[in-house]
Amino acid sequence: MTVRVGVIGAGNIGQDHIRRLGGVVAGSRVVAVADVDVARACAVAEAAEGMRVHASGHDLIEDPQVDAVVVATWAPSHEELVLASIAQGKPVFCEKPLAPTAEACLRIMDAETEHRRRLVQVGFMRRFDAGYRAMKSALATGNLGAPLMVHCAHRGPNAPPTLTSDMLITDSAIHEIDLMRWLLDEELTAATVRCPRSSSQDNPALHSPQLVMLESASGVLIDVEVFVNCRYGYDIRCELVGELGTVALGDTGGVVVRQAGQRADHIPTDWIERFADAYDGEMRAWIDSVISGKAVGPSSWDGYAATAVATACLESLSSGERATVQLVSRPSFYS
Amino acid sequence: MTVRVGVIGAGNIGQDHIRRLGGVVAGSRVVAVADVDVARACAVAEAAEGMRVHASGHDLIEDPQVDAVVVATWAPSHEELVLASIAQGKPVFCEKPLAPTAEACLRIMDAETEHRRRLVQVGFMRRFDAGYRAMKSALATGNLGAPLMVHCAHRGPNAPPTLTSDMLITDSAIHEIDLMRWLLDEELTAATVRCPRSSSQDNPALHSPQLVMLESASGVLIDVEVFVNCRYGYDIRCELVGELGTVALGDTGGVVVRQAGQRADHIPTDWIERFADAYDGEMRAWIDSVISGKAVGPSSWDGYAATAVATACLESLSSGERATVQLVSRPSFYS
Amino acid sequence: MTVRVGVIGAGNIGQDHIRRLGGVVAGSRVVAVADVDVARACAVAEAAEGMRVHASGHDLIEDPQVDAVVVATWAPSHEELVLASIAQGKPVFCEKPLAPTAEACLRIMDAETEHRRRLVQVGFMRRFDAGYRAMKSALATGNLGAPLMVHCAHRGPNAPPTLTSDMLITDSAIHEIDLMRWLLDEELTAATVRCPRSSSQDNPALHSPQLVMLESASGVLIDVEVFVNCRYGYDIRCELVGELGTVALGDTGGVVVRQAGQRADHIPTDWIERFADAYDGEMRAWIDSVISGKAVGPSSWDGYAATAVATACLESLSSGERATVQLVSRPSFYS
Amino acid sequence: MTVRVGVIGAGNIGQDHIRRLGGVVAGSRVVAVADVDVARACAVAEAAEGMRVHASGHDLIEDPQVDAVVVATWAPSHEELVLASIAQGKPVFCEKPLAPTAEACLRIMDAETEHRRRLVQVGFMRRFDAGYRAMKSALATGNLGAPLMVHCAHRGPNAPPTLTSDMLITDSAIHEIDLMRWLLDEELTAATVRCPRSSSQDNPALHSPQLVMLESASGVLIDVEVFVNCRYGYDIRCELVGELGTVALGDTGGVVVRQAGQRADHIPTDWIERFADAYDGEMRAWIDSVISGKAVGPSSWDGYAATAVATACLESLSSGERATVQLVSRPSFYS
Repeated sequence: MTVRVGVIGAGNIGQDHIRRLGGVVAGSRVVAVADVDVARACAVAEAAEGMRVHASGHDLIEDPQVDAVVVATWAPSHEELVLASIAQGKPVFCEKPLAPTAEACLRIMDAETEHRRRLVQVGFMRRFDAGYRAMKSALATGNLGAPLMVHCAHRGPNAPPTLTSDMLITDSAIHEIDLMRWLLDEELTAATVRCPRSSSQDNPALHSPQLVMLESASGVLIDVEVFVNCRYGYDIRCELVGELGTVALGDTGGVVVRQAGQRADHIPTDWIERFADAYDGEMRAWIDSVISGKAVGPSSWDGYAATAVATACLESLSSGERATVQLVSRPSFYS
Repeated sequence: MTVRVGVIGAGNIGQDHIRRLGGVVAGSRVVAVADVDVARACAVAEAAEGMRVHASGHDLIEDPQVDAVVVATWAPSHEELVLASIAQGKPVFCEKPLAPTAEACLRIMDAETEHRRRLVQVGFMRRFDAGYRAMKSALATGNLGAPLMVHCAHRGPNAPPTLTSDMLITDSAIHEIDLMRWLLDEELTAATVRCPRSSSQDNPALHSPQLVMLESASGVLIDVEVFVNCRYGYDIRCELVGELGTVALGDTGGVVVRQAGQRADHIPTDWIERFADAYDGEMRAWIDSVISGKAVGPSSWDGYAATAVATACLESLSSGERATVQLVSRPSFYS
Repeated sequence: MTVRVGVIGAGNIGQDHIRRLGGVVAGSRVVAVADVDVARACAVAEAAEGMRVHASGHDLIEDPQVDAVVVATWAPSHEELVLASIAQGKPVFCEKPLAPTAEACLRIMDAETEHRRRLVQVGFMRRFDAGYRAMKSALATGNLGAPLMVHCAHRGPNAPPTLTSDMLITDSAIHEIDLMRWLLDEELTAATVRCPRSSSQDNPALHSPQLVMLESASGVLIDVEVFVNCRYGYDIRCELVGELGTVALGDTGGVVVRQAGQRADHIPTDWIERFADAYDGEMRAWIDSVISGKAVGPSSWDGYAATAVATACLESLSSGERATVQLVSRPSFYS
Repeated sequence: MTVRVGVIGAGNIGQDHIRRLGGVVAGSRVVAVADVDVARACAVAEAAEGMRVHASGHDLIEDPQVDAVVVATWAPSHEELVLASIAQGKPVFCEKPLAPTAEACLRIMDAETEHRRRLVQVGFMRRFDAGYRAMKSALATGNLGAPLMVHCAHRGPNAPPTLTSDMLITDSAIHEIDLMRWLLDEELTAATVRCPRSSSQDNPALHSPQLVMLESASGVLIDVEVFVNCRYGYDIRCELVGELGTVALGDTGGVVVRQAGQRADHIPTDWIERFADAYDGEMRAWIDSVISGKAVGPSSWDGYAATAVATACLESLSSGERATVQLVSRPSFYS
């Protein structure tokens, strides 16, 4: 069976998913595209074979030739497009965040629950990264004892001029928020954000780096350095500290060059290079799940919880105080 | 377009290619299979959808539903199957070695040349490994100066009881032979094989490890430790020494565990784990080349040259002396 | 010239200094020893050549054969012994902490200032570690831009049963406190201590690990994981994050062993192994400074500031709130 | 007791030993110096305290104030100075090589044997390097099984214009020759030297790099890349391959800098930086042995065997063929 996919949003990430579904992931074909910028959608469709353009996301979702939907638009439109897909009973892959507010996420959960079948996968691709998966496996052996702390760094080389201090939480740390819930297999309950001296290299009003501290239900303390303009590369690091040992992401540098008094390897340039395999993996898992009818990967509940934790982080960033995460009880549908 | 592939040989490697062409590489479908063990072919076909079984490789090659052929049988049968594919004008992917003797390889080259189109890709998958490609890129920058030496190790954990000393050349070192030709972009001209004390862990008649030394046309000296029963893992290493610096494969250990007084990462268990991405890449390149009609990857000439160098290595292993590689002039068809 | 040293305190660290001054550091000789446990002092003296035993630290300090004094007793006695050495005008090396309270440290500073010559070196040996010194050099090049954050881990394998939660600050984090002041070349102004879930491996009342956060005058934010019962080894780590790059302590594992599917190196067993060279270096620097008459290394001011910061950490550990560091103005004598 | 040392040869290495014996190694004092360039000897003596200058090495050896002798002159003069020291019954530390010919070494062995006490330590300082010692310990555990192969690289950045192809053996590979004898605890029996294409960066007549292959009595095969003008740094590497695992020198890069898309550490600039601790260690061991009267470290036999292996290497370099090492039976005096 070949899954016929419709993609809403033809920007960078949307085009990347189209390329991936067309040329990398077996078992799928992109048959339709929609974008608020119709010309852009047309240009994308023209470069492909047999891809039609829809005037709106809703038209695409209702197209009977579309078996499953990818939502890669801007965050405020996620809710209505995901709800429309659920209404059509169509599996939907939604880029993170599921929605910008916890309330919107709850509405999606309600609709999906009513539908009685999980239809939503949220685009937290790091769960498909080989490194993080090996960390989770190492923890699962029990050899490290119970987890006590996690140290993370999330560094990117350059911040676009439009980037705000909040976006270090909502666009960057959101990945660690989801990842920690998945790695530790428990909820996060509180957040504290600390702002050291900011880099003078960019807009002085931008708080970068930030230190985001998260607490888990069992008392694990997580610290995440978020630094969006570190200049030197895209560098993702994570070490989990257990009672008996630690496990950390290794370096990913490929070849080692010895030259001019240095032994050096390469640091990825950006998230596309660093997480290319994880993106492939999440799409492959999604297409497989559409074929099998069994949902996998980050659920609406995961999308909701991540947004709730991010909300607490933003509160702490603003107040300077520790903020408690507000979560509803986990519905049995998502257990 | 979807390439309809027929696979001859349903052993481990054949089944692995079937899985890859079915589930990993977009744009292809395996429609037919053949094996000398017909029951095995039937079992493989049954597990798939719409895959027919042929009584012989020749029947499969002649099947009009088959666009392209994978030859994954034992080496002595390669020649006739590749020749039959060429006779049908069908692209053929042939596992290494192209053929066990240089003479057989020359006959394939003659047939392909007569056909006036390159139809053969040989299964030297390491050319598609990200590490080796990065080494080649580093060399191409010129920053390392001219290459002078290369140090390699090719280690596997266990040798099956049937393994002979010759097979360290024909099954293992053959990969480095092809890789060095590709990396240095020149022919190898001489070979010397040295046998240190053998491991006492297995059959004492088996010469393992061996030190294989190769010389390139420009004078680069390559040494390859081939050690097929090193016990500890599957470990492939390579450092190229240039006039101004060196470049080496990095370690591929994924996560780092600190425990019990050690900081440790993982060494691959076998070649399947180590080169999974390279196998995917070679098949993807092959399918793309079938679609585009433009041959890429290791050619019949490459298959011939590798077999010629391996022949010199076997001569040296037997005589204890340096042996010269015998090569015909490179036909312009393969330039 | 050979410096004749008297050592007060013949416990582990005292004996280690005696060994070092006798056999490793050129230009010195231990001529006298004192300990509250006179029998222990006698045993130590007997094993050496020409070393006399004094009934008290004060007797030793007043001994005209003693040119310079090492104080390696328990912390509460440091003040009076250092003051007595200053009164005699004799250079004194005092193990950390200079004194348990900021007030006691201030009294030492007053006495030394009155004496008009720096006589005190405090035993913060990490300043002599090659790794930390290379970090400081890297920062000094300016290539990393201004420092913004520092991430540290201070891990030891086992906690003695008598260890209290406060001692993670006063005995362990005190090293990072001094080191950060030296590395950043500025004072620390505030401290926050967070306690994650404690390890269940030892006394459940012991808060280990702790996360100690320090702020520098310029706004650098430092986090230190202090974990005294991590079981796996003695592991000291530090990464400084600048505007343009980072610099971190490298791994110190010596040889690399490949075995049983792992590539592993060794983690030091304890601080003696990890900082042996740094201890040698600090003693060598001290003896050289005694000979030259020019004080180097951590001063009384450094000892005072470290104690003041540790005091703020203890306050935060107790209150759960951020605590401000209370410092007098730096006297010009120590500038 | 303080050992009063006389140093013959006040060039770079001699001055370095004088600095070490004066300021680093406890228990010794340099009281006399001699050099064929008397002015240079005088300059060195003037910079020190209480160091007299002798008109000749022989005068220095006979000086009753000199307890022990360091010979750091050029190789052809070693024999007579070592013999003169033995004649005086004085312990002598002789820089490598013990003597340029095996015959000269044998004469030294004869004199020492006649004296009935070991008096000679040869300056193979690598035996005191922490990395090599850890390799030897790892081998001694038996966990790696029997040794089968060793891969080494000996790289230096620049070759002085006067350097000849022979000196890659006599000045560089000589270190690996001694080290392998010590590491494997057996003699080397044959040598083969191969010359790949030479670097075009220097004198085209200089054969650099070379591949030196050595065989041990038990059949271990050792390959050493000797490359004296690799430009990028001083890089010493060694991996021993056993039946069950391998052990290798780790990297020694100190801190890790992340900047401009690279993660890099430092490669030593020269042998002084790389082996500073080993030089300290060998001198400390020598002074200790002079005090205790029990010889340690590389003996005259070791010096002889190294010269004999180097002689075979030179023969192979000249002939292009494998050369057998000629060794007398090991006298029981040296067992």
